[in-house]
Amino acid sequence: MIVLTFSCPDRKGIVASVSKILFENDANIVESNQYSTNSGDKPHFFMRIVFEPESPQGLHSINQKLAEFSSVFNAEFKLTDTSVKKKAAVFVSKEDHCLYELLWQKSSGDLFIDIVCIISNHNILLPVAESYRLPFIYAPYKDNPSRQEEFIKREFKRLNLEIDFVILAKYMRVLSKNFINSFCQKIINIHHSFLPSFPGAKPYVQAYQKGVKLVGATAHFVNEKLDDGPIIEQDIIRIDHGDDINEIKRKGRIVEKLVLAKAVKLFTEDRILEHDNKTIIFE
Amino acid sequence: MIVLTFSCPDRKGIVASVSKILFENDANIVESNQYSTNSGDKPHFFMRIVFEPESPQGLHSINQKLAEFSSVFNAEFKLTDTSVKKKAAVFVSKEDHCLYELLWQKSSGDLFIDIVCIISNHNILLPVAESYRLPFIYAPYKDNPSRQEEFIKREFKRLNLEIDFVILAKYMRVLSKNFINSFCQKIINIHHSFLPSFPGAKPYVQAYQKGVKLVGATAHFVNEKLDDGPIIEQDIIRIDHGDDINEIKRKGRIVEKLVLAKAVKLFTEDRILEHDNKTIIFE
Amino acid sequence: MIVLTFSCPDRKGIVASVSKILFENDANIVESNQYSTNSGDKPHFFMRIVFEPESPQGLHSINQKLAEFSSVFNAEFKLTDTSVKKKAAVFVSKEDHCLYELLWQKSSGDLFIDIVCIISNHNILLPVAESYRLPFIYAPYKDNPSRQEEFIKREFKRLNLEIDFVILAKYMRVLSKNFINSFCQKIINIHHSFLPSFPGAKPYVQAYQKGVKLVGATAHFVNEKLDDGPIIEQDIIRIDHGDDINEIKRKGRIVEKLVLAKAVKLFTEDRILEHDNKTIIFE
Amino acid sequence: MIVLTFSCPDRKGIVASVSKILFENDANIVESNQYSTNSGDKPHFFMRIVFEPESPQGLHSINQKLAEFSSVFNAEFKLTDTSVKKKAAVFVSKEDHCLYELLWQKSSGDLFIDIVCIISNHNILLPVAESYRLPFIYAPYKDNPSRQEEFIKREFKRLNLEIDFVILAKYMRVLSKNFINSFCQKIINIHHSFLPSFPGAKPYVQAYQKGVKLVGATAHFVNEKLDDGPIIEQDIIRIDHGDDINEIKRKGRIVEKLVLAKAVKLFTEDRILEHDNKTIIFE
Repeated sequence: MIVLTFSCPDRKGIVASVSKILFENDANIVESNQYSTNSGDKPHFFMRIVFEPESPQGLHSINQKLAEFSSVFNAEFKLTDTSVKKKAAVFVSKEDHCLYELLWQKSSGDLFIDIVCIISNHNILLPVAESYRLPFIYAPYKDNPSRQEEFIKREFKRLNLEIDFVILAKYMRVLSKNFINSFCQKIINIHHSFLPSFPGAKPYVQAYQKGVKLVGATAHFVNEKLDDGPIIEQDIIRIDHGDDINEIKRKGRIVEKLVLAKAVKLFTEDRILEHDNKTIIFE
Repeated sequence: MIVLTFSCPDRKGIVASVSKILFENDANIVESNQYSTNSGDKPHFFMRIVFEPESPQGLHSINQKLAEFSSVFNAEFKLTDTSVKKKAAVFVSKEDHCLYELLWQKSSGDLFIDIVCIISNHNILLPVAESYRLPFIYAPYKDNPSRQEEFIKREFKRLNLEIDFVILAKYMRVLSKNFINSFCQKIINIHHSFLPSFPGAKPYVQAYQKGVKLVGATAHFVNEKLDDGPIIEQDIIRIDHGDDINEIKRKGRIVEKLVLAKAVKLFTEDRILEHDNKTIIFE
Repeated sequence: MIVLTFSCPDRKGIVASVSKILFENDANIVESNQYSTNSGDKPHFFMRIVFEPESPQGLHSINQKLAEFSSVFNAEFKLTDTSVKKKAAVFVSKEDHCLYELLWQKSSGDLFIDIVCIISNHNILLPVAESYRLPFIYAPYKDNPSRQEEFIKREFKRLNLEIDFVILAKYMRVLSKNFINSFCQKIINIHHSFLPSFPGAKPYVQAYQKGVKLVGATAHFVNEKLDDGPIIEQDIIRIDHGDDINEIKRKGRIVEKLVLAKAVKLFTEDRILEHDNKTIIFE
Repeated sequence: MIVLTFSCPDRKGIVASVSKILFENDANIVESNQYSTNSGDKPHFFMRIVFEPESPQGLHSINQKLAEFSSVFNAEFKLTDTSVKKKAAVFVSKEDHCLYELLWQKSSGDLFIDIVCIISNHNILLPVAESYRLPFIYAPYKDNPSRQEEFIKREFKRLNLEIDFVILAKYMRVLSKNFINSFCQKIINIHHSFLPSFPGAKPYVQAYQKGVKLVGATAHFVNEKLDDGPIIEQDIIRIDHGDDINEIKRKGRIVEKLVLAKAVKLFTEDRILEHDNKTIIFE
């Protein structure tokens, strides 16, 4: 199957034109979703179509026609083969629950990804990498993120790794502008609060002190502002006055790992489009 | 705006053909959803499109083209004007919470419906109807549903009521085959359990005795088998050992009224298609 | 039944002492909950007991013994008769959904309260008050809250109203320090966001702009800092990119009214204790 | 810390008597919960108290006093040391998600248990046992459960295993009466439906065919009737028409593992009392 994601300034006839291209090349549409922002003065159109091409030539021709069409409609589009696994580099620090959930969902087939390496500023989770026979890059934090990231990038090269996207699975360090830009809209972070509540450090301690009745987790793309990238998925769990900080953390971990895995699944299935620092999710 | 709902045996080119018809008549597609059952040996295709027609003539032409196309593709389709309120007859017995939720959501504009009359086998809720200046048909239960329904239908005529669909808002009586068939796929019932658990009488008592940890409510279309029509919407609420039957009922009422109102909203916006005793919901 | 709420600095023997007092006066304990903060250097103890006294004399004696005991243990306690309805003054502005939910839950018996009057800075909801035969105090906003509140208090006196607590059911104005202090820990507000996210004005617009995937509501006691009093109850509802501000508001209203009604229920059943700007909820 | 669980026919003075015993032996009550069934003609009383004993002698004396008291009040009680891990035998078939969740929550400290062995009628999950250095008993299903269980019990003996309770973590076989009785109220099963909906085989297929909008999971004690023991915990997840059976299973697995882990946690913390084929859960 092929996933087409497509976006452009809204106008009449987009669906008709695109579906005509697919039909004329004998493709069979299996799933389709669209959405237009009708607020603001510049309405924008978004679409995701899953189709079965008749043949590689058919697909080639579709690609060409879409390119022509896109230059006219000022559109962006992408064709992705669903049979090819996306390659993830997973960053961790000391906590393992998000990493384990990714590994388990990968091996059960629930997540269709390759995990090509695990990177950490600690070596605590090295045994996990070993037991799954995955390369482990131990990159202790230096005085600034750039020097550490240079080291990581050299390791990527040395290990000959191709990386499609980055998962920050409770990586407790800030990345440099540079690194973020080299994986634009391709770094997924899990923050352990219901953003915009409690950004930054120690959100569970903040939640405990505030006396909230729910705690949450937020998976988002990373951009240059801390904990402020486009939100992909959020969920919450109920707590009460009897829960101390450890119990809040315990409950929170369950939400964190599920929210992150859900966001990764949405990403691997090309269900996320981005616009105006927000996400459009085609479920 | 116009809503097009469309379904037919699945094959290539449906989306292309339909969107071409809309495009050629200058309609602007605002929202679109589709789905195919890919299980079973007879895949079926479903679509819901919201569009803005260029003119009444354009809409007329679209209607004609779709009719031609449908006879070829063996399709069913419907065009509905979203500016026209659907007319509901609401059946109740003694409980008022579902009725009040419908009335409140209607007056706040959350539900875009007309409530043309309230029918009950008791006269307890007559004052509610009066305070909202709605006709109230008091139809005490006779020996069998048919005689009671004949009376109700005579009243509909006498009051000159046009009725698009029927809401059973905690109407605790079974309707006759005849009545059900005269409003085929247009009677929405709320059952106070998470079906198929606890069908029939006193579901909360059954839930209490079973010691379940959640109770639910189910909104479904009514067909000839008791509590077995296509499910539209379900939700649940947590209970615990400390909740006696009254407390379970109290919690349940909150779920009942919200689930029923949600189902009615989906119906009024033509978001529900039916196939094989199940619903496709385009949200 | 009598509800005893009790709190004091934690130490050994409190439960034994209190339950001995009840036992020696032939009271039957029906429900009991306790909690100690074990964090911080000054652990504090909280308890809620529901009991059936043997006789009015028995209750009198229990009250006396608890008073003696409390002066020694530096405790605060309160005895409340569950057969007496608490009297609420409900403040509203233009929106009616929270008011209607309170009125409906009151009349169904789900909320055991008296609503003694409705106060508003607009006269839009006067007809609602009339249809429920409740006094309506129309208090247009003056240049500062104090002048408006003086007027309201004069009306309370003129109407001879006794008021146990205040419900701000979408009252969109800030109250004065003075007014807040005269109803200390007895003013319940509903804020239409998941605090501490989006305090202040237009939380749904903020939520929309931020692109969150859930919106929430928070019921809290009012203190002198805006939207910062002890949180009583919170809940959330899922939204997606397709929901515009009106749809977010619509979904939010459902959460708002249920969260407020839940908080009021907890208050009327004396299930809320307050400590350190947080609540202990004995459910 | 010591957990006391206690139940007896309800009467006055139980709390006073028990807390007096604790106080006179200098124990410090940290947490306490109680509940009486007030329905039915034979009200029953349940209590859970967490306390810190002054000394081993103090605990011994408390035990003695409670035993005397219990013979008079016709009560059952149990004292459990929270510093001692309960020993679990985990039965699996082919699926690994519940097993992995238990192993992960154990190693993170979220579940305070010992897993003493893994038993399976298949050898697929042997590598998991090996990687965690746990004994694996491969017990292929024979013609009837008894013969298989005899083999398992012989292995328990041979390996010198002490077992406090049994977890059926997606063990797809029925156990014999005999085996169930030898672990009375100590076998926790996860059933992949919201019981009493869809008991028996293939609940997700049943759910798909029925067209429900939510699927669930139920953790319960095992008794002699299939899928009918006292329910410990339940939860649900939303599905829609677009989810085929594989997707329903995938979503369901997430609920299954969390519901089972929650039930095991409640059990290990002695928070579950059983009465009349229902559970009382002191959270």
